[in-house]
Amino acid sequence: MSQLEQLKAYYEEYATNNKFSKEPKGLYDPVDYILNIGGKRLRPLMLLMTAKLFTDDLEKALAPAYAIEVFHNFTLVHDDIMDAAPLRRGKTTVHHKWNVNTGILSGDVMLVQAYEYLRQVDATILPEVLRIFNEVAIGVCEGQQFDVDFETMDRVSIPQYIKMIELKTSVLVAGAMRIGALVGGASEEDAYNLGEFGRNIGIAFQLQDDILDTFGDPDKFGKKVGGDIAQNKKTFLVIKSLELSTPEIAQRLQYLLSTYPEDETGKIKEVTAIFDYLDIRKHANAEKEAYLNLAYEHLKAVNIPESKKQPLYDFAQYLIHRDI
Amino acid sequence: MSQLEQLKAYYEEYATNNKFSKEPKGLYDPVDYILNIGGKRLRPLMLLMTAKLFTDDLEKALAPAYAIEVFHNFTLVHDDIMDAAPLRRGKTTVHHKWNVNTGILSGDVMLVQAYEYLRQVDATILPEVLRIFNEVAIGVCEGQQFDVDFETMDRVSIPQYIKMIELKTSVLVAGAMRIGALVGGASEEDAYNLGEFGRNIGIAFQLQDDILDTFGDPDKFGKKVGGDIAQNKKTFLVIKSLELSTPEIAQRLQYLLSTYPEDETGKIKEVTAIFDYLDIRKHANAEKEAYLNLAYEHLKAVNIPESKKQPLYDFAQYLIHRDI
Repeated sequence: MSQLEQLKAYYEEYATNNKFSKEPKGLYDPVDYILNIGGKRLRPLMLLMTAKLFTDDLEKALAPAYAIEVFHNFTLVHDDIMDAAPLRRGKTTVHHKWNVNTGILSGDVMLVQAYEYLRQVDATILPEVLRIFNEVAIGVCEGQQFDVDFETMDRVSIPQYIKMIELKTSVLVAGAMRIGALVGGASEEDAYNLGEFGRNIGIAFQLQDDILDTFGDPDKFGKKVGGDIAQNKKTFLVIKSLELSTPEIAQRLQYLLSTYPEDETGKIKEVTAIFDYLDIRKHANAEKEAYLNLAYEHLKAVNIPESKKQPLYDFAQYLIHRDI
Repeated sequence: MSQLEQLKAYYEEYATNNKFSKEPKGLYDPVDYILNIGGKRLRPLMLLMTAKLFTDDLEKALAPAYAIEVFHNFTLVHDDIMDAAPLRRGKTTVHHKWNVNTGILSGDVMLVQAYEYLRQVDATILPEVLRIFNEVAIGVCEGQQFDVDFETMDRVSIPQYIKMIELKTSVLVAGAMRIGALVGGASEEDAYNLGEFGRNIGIAFQLQDDILDTFGDPDKFGKKVGGDIAQNKKTFLVIKSLELSTPEIAQRLQYLLSTYPEDETGKIKEVTAIFDYLDIRKHANAEKEAYLNLAYEHLKAVNIPESKKQPLYDFAQYLIHRDI
């Protein structure tokens, strides 16, 4: 088994032993459901990998890793209600399988349970861990609000978009790694740099997601290629296109991204052609590479031998060059 | 000014200085709204009063007091969505003034912000304060679920009902006082006893609420007398009646409490007559007094001079014998 597979097995064993199978069932059954319908466990694994840079005793890192995963799934349950999404990871969402009230309340208790697992870190680092976690959780809520606000805004700038994806996804990856480092015994400076590595990897990962959604290999990409275009999402590709295009093309793009044709094929084809004409894929890749390089700079600054960092470089490559 | 009025002014000044008036407005405006449409601030005041038993330096008690109030208001925002309630404290609820998604997300950030204020207690007591707060928050969620479950249950027992009101309301009062004691510098034993005082006062208060809703003075009671009956709520009065009545009366009561007549006057009158026939008010008062006495026993056990405890006895009397 690779180190990553070992860590995943170690994490899954803990998660299984910490199922919430208790009363009232109406509250906790949905929690166990959402935690067990798949998910790559990226965030808890990143926490464990980071802790492992500084210690071989990973037992104390399991509770905060679980806290991060429970928190992440809380955001999925509430986001799916807000997006009226019927499916998550190919399975029925909590509020569809039960109802909206259950989704709200089970989500709430997951947020609290995340804090309950987080509390189990050593008392000496608890104040700092809690500070970081609160900052993350507040950022995630603010990011979700910015995402909502963007839907009614005519123009979103690239910095605004980056800020939104940073808050919505990267701050949690950053927090997972920063907390993992502290739990492993890192200095605050090393923990900070590992957090910034995570933050920038997270942004690069989200940009990659935008690129793959339109340009991914249909045979390898998990979701339907062109889904973002079909749903008129304001991705990096769209925002950058509006920035670079003539008024005429911009107008056509904005028109296309306000329609919901029954057959989306033509719309997806035309929007993709506009992206191609403006060479947007190149711009998106350049932006992604810039964040990747920023991430590597922070990783280089961490005061441990370079050889120990290899699993993190590998993981970053796996995340960014995945085509699934 | 009485001590209570002084504490309230002290708290309100802090709350005013800690408004959330910041970006994104769509997220934080509803938070400031719900925190400023009234409310008696009972929970933060109980935290401050308890801290004051042990210290005159109340400054460090302000952040956790605010945490408790922000948490309480988070539960109101989410509960109002689940109950589809249009009004709270006579004002439009958050999800009616904005929308359900806003209610969910602004509620979420309030829960996180509660932890952020709670974090500001001294590091030495943070692990214990966080443990208590998590226990409270988990209890409140479980209590809300039990409340939902009860609606579809044929029979609820008195112990089940007491457990539900304990979780839904008393655990937060208990937590406020226990945390207040710790912040003031109390021993864990004194903090425990003050928490139990709060828990039992909370249960007595909720029983009083059930009694007043049916038997309150219409001129003094804030809400419409008979509201619980009109809404077919399974209060202590109903559950105790079903326990004490003949099958015929029980059947009639259950029938009445399944109807929604346009003019509720006759229904309220007949249900109240059944309560009177079964002397339910006496039973409810006896139950209330029992919890009140339990509360006083825990207060007596606290290792400070009896004279210092007077404000807490007074406050309990104010809560329990209020007819508003």
